[in-house]
Amino acid sequence: MNINKDIQLDVEATGERILGRWADIRRSTRRVIEEKQLFKQEGLSMEKHRELVLKQLKTLVDSGATKYGFQTELGGQMTPGGALSSFEELVFADPSLQIKQGVQYGLFSSAILYLGTEHHYKAFLPGAVNFEVPGAFAMTETGHGSDVASIGTTATYDPATEEFIIHTPDRHSYKDYLGNAALHGHAAVVFAQLYTGGEKHGVHAFYVPIRKKGKLLPGVGSEDDGLKGGLNGIDNGRLFFNQVRVPRTNLLNRYADVTPEGTYTSVIESPGRRFFTQLGALVQGRVSLTGAVVNSQKLALDIAVRYGLERKQFAGADGKEQTLLDYGRHQRRLLPLLARTYAQIFTHQELLEQFHLVFTGENDTDEARQDLETVAAASKALSTWYALDTIQECREACGGQGFMAEHRLTGLRADMDVYVTFEGDNNVMLQLVAKRLLTDYAKAFKSPDFGTLANYVAGQVGEATINRGGLRGLAQKMVDFGSTARSVGFVKEEEHQHQLLTDRVHTMIAKLANNLKHSGPKDPAKEAELFNRYQNDLILAAKAHGELILWEAFTSALKTIKDDDSRQILTWLRDLYGFSVLEENLAWYLINGRLSSSRAEAITEYIDTRLLPRLRPHAESLVDAFLLTPGLVRSTLAQDEKARQESRTELVRK
Amino acid sequence: MNINKDIQLDVEATGERILGRWADIRRSTRRVIEEKQLFKQEGLSMEKHRELVLKQLKTLVDSGATKYGFQTELGGQMTPGGALSSFEELVFADPSLQIKQGVQYGLFSSAILYLGTEHHYKAFLPGAVNFEVPGAFAMTETGHGSDVASIGTTATYDPATEEFIIHTPDRHSYKDYLGNAALHGHAAVVFAQLYTGGEKHGVHAFYVPIRKKGKLLPGVGSEDDGLKGGLNGIDNGRLFFNQVRVPRTNLLNRYADVTPEGTYTSVIESPGRRFFTQLGALVQGRVSLTGAVVNSQKLALDIAVRYGLERKQFAGADGKEQTLLDYGRHQRRLLPLLARTYAQIFTHQELLEQFHLVFTGENDTDEARQDLETVAAASKALSTWYALDTIQECREACGGQGFMAEHRLTGLRADMDVYVTFEGDNNVMLQLVAKRLLTDYAKAFKSPDFGTLANYVAGQVGEATINRGGLRGLAQKMVDFGSTARSVGFVKEEEHQHQLLTDRVHTMIAKLANNLKHSGPKDPAKEAELFNRYQNDLILAAKAHGELILWEAFTSALKTIKDDDSRQILTWLRDLYGFSVLEENLAWYLINGRLSSSRAEAITEYIDTRLLPRLRPHAESLVDAFLLTPGLVRSTLAQDEKARQESRTELVRK
Repeated sequence: MNINKDIQLDVEATGERILGRWADIRRSTRRVIEEKQLFKQEGLSMEKHRELVLKQLKTLVDSGATKYGFQTELGGQMTPGGALSSFEELVFADPSLQIKQGVQYGLFSSAILYLGTEHHYKAFLPGAVNFEVPGAFAMTETGHGSDVASIGTTATYDPATEEFIIHTPDRHSYKDYLGNAALHGHAAVVFAQLYTGGEKHGVHAFYVPIRKKGKLLPGVGSEDDGLKGGLNGIDNGRLFFNQVRVPRTNLLNRYADVTPEGTYTSVIESPGRRFFTQLGALVQGRVSLTGAVVNSQKLALDIAVRYGLERKQFAGADGKEQTLLDYGRHQRRLLPLLARTYAQIFTHQELLEQFHLVFTGENDTDEARQDLETVAAASKALSTWYALDTIQECREACGGQGFMAEHRLTGLRADMDVYVTFEGDNNVMLQLVAKRLLTDYAKAFKSPDFGTLANYVAGQVGEATINRGGLRGLAQKMVDFGSTARSVGFVKEEEHQHQLLTDRVHTMIAKLANNLKHSGPKDPAKEAELFNRYQNDLILAAKAHGELILWEAFTSALKTIKDDDSRQILTWLRDLYGFSVLEENLAWYLINGRLSSSRAEAITEYIDTRLLPRLRPHAESLVDAFLLTPGLVRSTLAQDEKARQESRTELVRK
Repeated sequence: MNINKDIQLDVEATGERILGRWADIRRSTRRVIEEKQLFKQEGLSMEKHRELVLKQLKTLVDSGATKYGFQTELGGQMTPGGALSSFEELVFADPSLQIKQGVQYGLFSSAILYLGTEHHYKAFLPGAVNFEVPGAFAMTETGHGSDVASIGTTATYDPATEEFIIHTPDRHSYKDYLGNAALHGHAAVVFAQLYTGGEKHGVHAFYVPIRKKGKLLPGVGSEDDGLKGGLNGIDNGRLFFNQVRVPRTNLLNRYADVTPEGTYTSVIESPGRRFFTQLGALVQGRVSLTGAVVNSQKLALDIAVRYGLERKQFAGADGKEQTLLDYGRHQRRLLPLLARTYAQIFTHQELLEQFHLVFTGENDTDEARQDLETVAAASKALSTWYALDTIQECREACGGQGFMAEHRLTGLRADMDVYVTFEGDNNVMLQLVAKRLLTDYAKAFKSPDFGTLANYVAGQVGEATINRGGLRGLAQKMVDFGSTARSVGFVKEEEHQHQLLTDRVHTMIAKLANNLKHSGPKDPAKEAELFNRYQNDLILAAKAHGELILWEAFTSALKTIKDDDSRQILTWLRDLYGFSVLEENLAWYLINGRLSSSRAEAITEYIDTRLLPRLRPHAESLVDAFLLTPGLVRSTLAQDEKARQESRTELVRK
């Protein structure tokens, strides 16, 4: 079995494939980070960290790396995908710098771009994009969290002066956790319930100046959120408004407007759709966070895998000290995480492409937007959780060394922590995904019934079913799942892995559809009770869907790898991802009769005796393909032992 | 089904039961924390944090709370269990203060007490216990991590001067991560390879002065570990020695000595046993960390459960905003963690009792020590991981609020992070457990063979099999596992939960014993390969054993609850723990034919539809029973909404 030693990963080509479509922009931003030394400094006080990040962001703005998403006359290229690519690389600099940039460009400026019109482009966008006007994105409220529809801030139109009056009615309705709110913001895009003539029209966005020369404007209040669990380079804070007046034209009016007389008009009739369309711009945050955390995983794995290759520990039964990564357990700890990270990388590439097509207008249909939002929600939830898992395992795999701040893993984890909560809490995200799947299911089956599933065979096979956010068609009728042959041969087939993963999502959704049905007349209390009873199952089904999306993206990517050796190694890695998902959900496959006991047991054995040993020799080249330079990694753990020793100034005195 | 609303937890009695045998000492230490305001201050610089913690520790020493484990003439009570109880409560103050205390008392002073003799008690112990001589515990080395037997530091006896020469041969052998090493330590207990007349006698401990009036002594080198991922109130650092001479009598000589002429003697003949006996004192660290992290979980759950009871979110289908903890998913997130925390509490109580009996000499047999070490290793590994999980889930369950440093959850998690690594890396701990289980197994079966297991029925039932660290006897022959009846009635029975959990450990160990066998002559390479192949399985078996220990401890504790209502509620909680363990390992039970598919599915359903709804009304009283005062919790999230609102100084201006 020397098959694994004879072949080699083409690091350069694989690295290029991983950098993806906007490789040049990514490389350029990486260069800016290194050349301008936009590095996180551990151990700064919150005040000093905020100052440094503000300064770093100005340097970054001057380099042009923040403007890709905007008009050429503002220094940009109107490339939404490129803009996010640049943003994502900033995790290598300092996640605080990344999020500060994201607040200014991905949220504040993008809200003006995507919710505003010509007037706003002229009046507000230049200052925002040049960072002359640092801005806050004032959506979340203390008392309402992810439930944006329920926010309490009001914007009441006064036809007498042709102004909106922005007002915070109570403590629950403070805008909270906003970057740039505590100190640096001079304006904010404020989301508020729009009222005209006593009538409520739902949530809309307004451009509201909040400071002048660093001083709060009359009626505007601000509190500092203070120290956080991470991202302390950002001045998060609260904003609240006491009857603050802004001109009528400060309503960002792409989708709805108010005439001088106070008549409300909208290009979107349904209030529900109008709300979700305006929130649609938020998807950018979810897409870019997904890319950001994947980069944080590359960094963590680069460090931990190299450490595992350097570090020797314990004498084995044969008396030799062993390299850490030669231990079965250590391989089990790191290699499946490496596989999952690759799956996330390719998933994110597809997501970014979808995002680009929608936001450039190249493919901006309702269906494309819905798919984008579904995949973004699933990917954001799964990827941000995976990042915390991955970084933590990497930190533990580096032992006590991993706990030292200089090796970056603890700080990285602390900074990534809140990514699971912001831009939409992960549990909320997964419920959005589940609702989409249930809707698709209801469309496919007018009478949703568990029994009908078995007969459902979609005509579409392969590519056509890939890249869609919603419920997949089953590629073909399930066969052979009852076999008791003790063999993983069946599971090794790509097509069967796909079937197993797809079938799980289908069956879970079908069961849910059945369980959530209730007979008789509409009964909100009963519906609430049912929802509650199955809320956990909804989230599990959405997770299963996310796992399927990751597997599909990895598999699609394999088809683009030209080099045979590389494709072989990445196929093993994809199998490791697929097998790991199956292993984690083995109980489901057994209970539902999809795998026999012997086959289920063989899955674990196949991981231990085939996939891990095959991949172990390629662990290093698989992290090499992340193309991270020492200037981006900045941890001595990722250097070899000799370099590490030499880097110590004080050696033992002889 | 109003059964759950009609009964109430006796908070006071349950609280007392949780405080356990040394309740008075725990209460006393809590009082000191509150009265002297020994609180963690978030956001301090490392330097200021270290200063503060040093000052706090002096205050704590003056209160007497650090001395319980030492002789009465030193202000103590010679109560090992009481000493650890006091230590464990310090997590409510600041984990840095806790670990700084642990370094001085649990490690440095305890090493003198347990490895030294009268001379050391007189010469060194008073200064150590009064904290006039802050000390380091110099065991771990940069290059050897958990592999203490391989350390490189040497102590070579020179009969000419009757001194030991302590020496660091290379960079790998720097003592590392030692509290008090960077700044405050004036002495250290140094572990080194003892040499006399050219002969190596293995690892021994030496008392070595390192600083005088704050200045390093000649030949002693020190480096600062610098900023860490947490616990930054402690001055961790490295120590290294260049031919440092100490008197012969500085060898801590309880178990081995060197005569003035240089003859090595030991009361323990086997070098292996001698090594492990001297390391036996380390078990104190593992026991007390287990207790410490359990307290950190109480704190996190106190905050998150109360927040879940206060916070309203989203309108349900019935239009009313719902309390967070009424959501099915939210219950799924927090209540199983509450159940597991209770299991950990009771497990730790038994462990502490065992520790006390061994270390007071009341029951200091080889077997008792081995059991203690096995249970401590299993508990330390599981509990420290559970703590990170629990705190993280609590932080996420508090949304963005949970990320604010003032609410303590992020800082608590950062501080607890390294507990999974120090005092023995968790993966190493679990391998120790597995080895013990394999040894027990080999003793029970001269010819370990998977087939013989089915016939193995131990005579002992009930209590007698509980409280032992090693492999349990099966309480009775497995029956009825093949039943296909769709019912959890079987699993609900306490005895059957026990059988299922015990059987799993047995079967895993039996399989491992079989797999690790190899025929033919001794072959180290083959053995190393086999070990590696099954290393992950070893760790999984040890985990299963740990889960069993937790379940048993919870179950034993139920028998001591006199109040019927409380016992009922806690029995549901124990069932939730037991069911959660089964659910998590369902694939194993299915593959091995221990549960039918329908029964397996019913387990999840029983959790969702019975246990969670039954326990939900008691969530608050179950955290009330932790008896945490606001002074210990210090998070406004754990206060009710009204108090929180009033605590804000700046309200919306009207």
